[in-house]
Amino acid sequence: MIGQDIIARFTALLGEKRVMTDADAILPWVNDWRGRYHGAAAAILQPDSTDQVAAAVGLAAELGVPLVPQGGNTSMVGGATPPTDGSALILSLRRMNRIRNLAADDNLAVCEAGVILSNLHDAAAAADRRFPLSLGAKGSATIGGLISTNAGGTQVLRHGTMRALVEGVEAVLPDGSIFHGLDALKKDNRGYDIKQLLIGAEGTLGVITAASLRLVPAIAARAVGWVGVPSPADALSLLRLCEERLGDSVEGFEVIADDGLGHVLSHIPDTRCPIATRTPWHVLIEIDHGDLGEPGPGERLEGALAEALERGLAVDAAISANEAQAEAFWRIRESLSEAERAQGPALQYDISVPVARMPAFMTDAARQAERRFPGTTASSFGHLGDGNVHFHVRAPQGTTDGPSWIAAQGQGINRFVHDAVVAAGGSISAEHGIGQMKRAELGRLAGPARLHALRAIKDAFDPQGIMNPDKLVPRPEEG
Amino acid sequence: MIGQDIIARFTALLGEKRVMTDADAILPWVNDWRGRYHGAAAAILQPDSTDQVAAAVGLAAELGVPLVPQGGNTSMVGGATPPTDGSALILSLRRMNRIRNLAADDNLAVCEAGVILSNLHDAAAAADRRFPLSLGAKGSATIGGLISTNAGGTQVLRHGTMRALVEGVEAVLPDGSIFHGLDALKKDNRGYDIKQLLIGAEGTLGVITAASLRLVPAIAARAVGWVGVPSPADALSLLRLCEERLGDSVEGFEVIADDGLGHVLSHIPDTRCPIATRTPWHVLIEIDHGDLGEPGPGERLEGALAEALERGLAVDAAISANEAQAEAFWRIRESLSEAERAQGPALQYDISVPVARMPAFMTDAARQAERRFPGTTASSFGHLGDGNVHFHVRAPQGTTDGPSWIAAQGQGINRFVHDAVVAAGGSISAEHGIGQMKRAELGRLAGPARLHALRAIKDAFDPQGIMNPDKLVPRPEEG
Repeated sequence: MIGQDIIARFTALLGEKRVMTDADAILPWVNDWRGRYHGAAAAILQPDSTDQVAAAVGLAAELGVPLVPQGGNTSMVGGATPPTDGSALILSLRRMNRIRNLAADDNLAVCEAGVILSNLHDAAAAADRRFPLSLGAKGSATIGGLISTNAGGTQVLRHGTMRALVEGVEAVLPDGSIFHGLDALKKDNRGYDIKQLLIGAEGTLGVITAASLRLVPAIAARAVGWVGVPSPADALSLLRLCEERLGDSVEGFEVIADDGLGHVLSHIPDTRCPIATRTPWHVLIEIDHGDLGEPGPGERLEGALAEALERGLAVDAAISANEAQAEAFWRIRESLSEAERAQGPALQYDISVPVARMPAFMTDAARQAERRFPGTTASSFGHLGDGNVHFHVRAPQGTTDGPSWIAAQGQGINRFVHDAVVAAGGSISAEHGIGQMKRAELGRLAGPARLHALRAIKDAFDPQGIMNPDKLVPRPEEG
Repeated sequence: MIGQDIIARFTALLGEKRVMTDADAILPWVNDWRGRYHGAAAAILQPDSTDQVAAAVGLAAELGVPLVPQGGNTSMVGGATPPTDGSALILSLRRMNRIRNLAADDNLAVCEAGVILSNLHDAAAAADRRFPLSLGAKGSATIGGLISTNAGGTQVLRHGTMRALVEGVEAVLPDGSIFHGLDALKKDNRGYDIKQLLIGAEGTLGVITAASLRLVPAIAARAVGWVGVPSPADALSLLRLCEERLGDSVEGFEVIADDGLGHVLSHIPDTRCPIATRTPWHVLIEIDHGDLGEPGPGERLEGALAEALERGLAVDAAISANEAQAEAFWRIRESLSEAERAQGPALQYDISVPVARMPAFMTDAARQAERRFPGTTASSFGHLGDGNVHFHVRAPQGTTDGPSWIAAQGQGINRFVHDAVVAAGGSISAEHGIGQMKRAELGRLAGPARLHALRAIKDAFDPQGIMNPDKLVPRPEEG
């Protein structure tokens, strides 16, 4: 555990109110929100300006004290949980929560790292704009964390991941220097793209303190469709058809296996299947228009779906008649994780493969997993158009002790699924990052050139290893 | 000069026909195409496979021989010209010129580094698709060079620079290892984005050997408009209006000062001003539609321009009635550089500032330059919507000896313009890169955090300094 003498140095630097040492107050932040990773920290540093972050990191560098940057603590991979031995301090960005500027005409918002995503949504909406990235944790996830993990969500198909929405960053590098890159330049070829390197670096190369983010026009009209399809391959053909007929107005395209839908209908109150027929697979499509011109999104979607039914890509389809129905369709998609948890223990994988290979992966990998691990059932749902699905392997029916099942089978199933992903040319982390959870698997599966590059970059930026230790970069013994 | 013993090692490795040593044959490739940079090289290595590139780089690493990767040799900043002392060999990628795969359904093309841009355009067109990046040098520029310089062009507004179009890369790192990253993954959070780091690295971190590139639908219908506007600020308001009314169909938006137009009309045969009124500034807009549905692009553009005339943003406007007129409008824009050369000696700057600050920059920086350097005239043209213009400072009228004028005034004017760009929060290289030409200025103007990061990354990837020596990264004495 870091000693009082060191805490005193940070207190002298930042002031007492910016160094939290009360054990009860610290407790919620040393464990991850799902309770899978447990750490310890003698203090949480809570600077409220970029200069204070720079000073804190500079002192940490001088003293060789590791820091764990933390936003809303919503990591899915233990990315913001400190080491168990208390050898690091938490550097919370939550007090840096100002929207410094929101220029609607320029479609730009400059946010500090601690701004909570839903607060940015509200501020953009008040200016008749929107920030087109959203996910379940939007009420606590912060901009800094979302950038550091290159967050995705359900709007990536049209607007891209965080990587495509960040127009500039301000960051404190591990030596305490400030990287001034907030100016939103659409073209900038002054050498290596430091901004892109910091995005998705999970706080291991420095601390993002603020960012310029791209806004888009508010949605004036939308239509949401629910389509029953025979197979993932038909779902992909439907996507291609929609892209051709509806162009850039396709804002969401999610695919859901029928068993997943069944679990929602069983466990989530007030849900019903939007179409009369139960088909093996389902697609949820959202079409957005920035204006109220004719033909509207409902009419245009109807045209595309009629063609899909005619061509046999779809078996049945429904289009939301009003906003309440649109919400109800989305609620099914958004309840899938909760329904799966209620259904029983399962291992969940956040993976991607090239879009064209996704239909075969969805059916083949599930079948192979069920064969290899008898009693399990496997299926997937998610962002087909992004080549990213959440692939679940469920414990055999009647399994009551989930943790024991995971302890016994987890590693074997992990390896099986990840090997299948690599064989399909995919990524073992599509949107959640590596953190602690996938570090060893990344080491096992990354090629030597990628591993060498990751380690070389980490050493170049953070030779002392003080930024978010033991995250993302595989240990020497891990491959 | 590198000795025969070393050449013999490469010849033994690659075979005689892949090592060019004839001085006459080498000559065109040791100078840049504008004749501003002159180098020397004892041989050009011409591998025709990724494995051969890896072998060549591996041998270079073993022997400590620097390599200068080269595609079409169309750099604007001396980025592909070897050192004058002959201490490096050229590594030409031009024989790696296969389009390995073009999957129209997936909107993807996998190209080797040596594929010439216009060949990719043709292949995409044959599959009813297009690759939405184009520039003057398309007949010789290669995909590898375009990626290594994060090329831009006139379609960036809608489709982004090369950075946004590369879905995967294969590269040989400076130790000779192969980075396998060709799989096109829309979501991939396996740590630092090595792909984005290699894009725009100007061959200083390794050699790109192939890439997966995004294709888009072919254009079914287009309309090109020419609009006379009172000022750059009105041009920006017009852009915002067009984006609001015409959305993603705005494919091009170029702004041109009236003096630039005048030079085209004087020096380029068969050109005429598309509108009856001569206004201080001009805008060229292209609207593209992927289908032939109604209302077509001409009708939609007409609606937006009528509103602009009504609101006083525009003084006069013309819309192309047919493809020949559309071409004629674009020809004016594309002839600007040639017309400026015919007009007399000038210094040209490829710079960017945040879009919102561009109108003020265009007028103020020109006025200030003319005041500071009496007799000069200054103006700009280019990609207003990208915040990127080509800013020209012309020698006083009657200057016949351009090189002497540049020798006397060049450095002072360079510093003046670059300082103005930095003061406006901009970049001294919007799309051409750093190469040799801007290396010292980057060193002078980059903040310490950026400089430190550039050097640390270079050292991490290329500790021997054998990849494209003396390009992009400022020397120790340069800041």
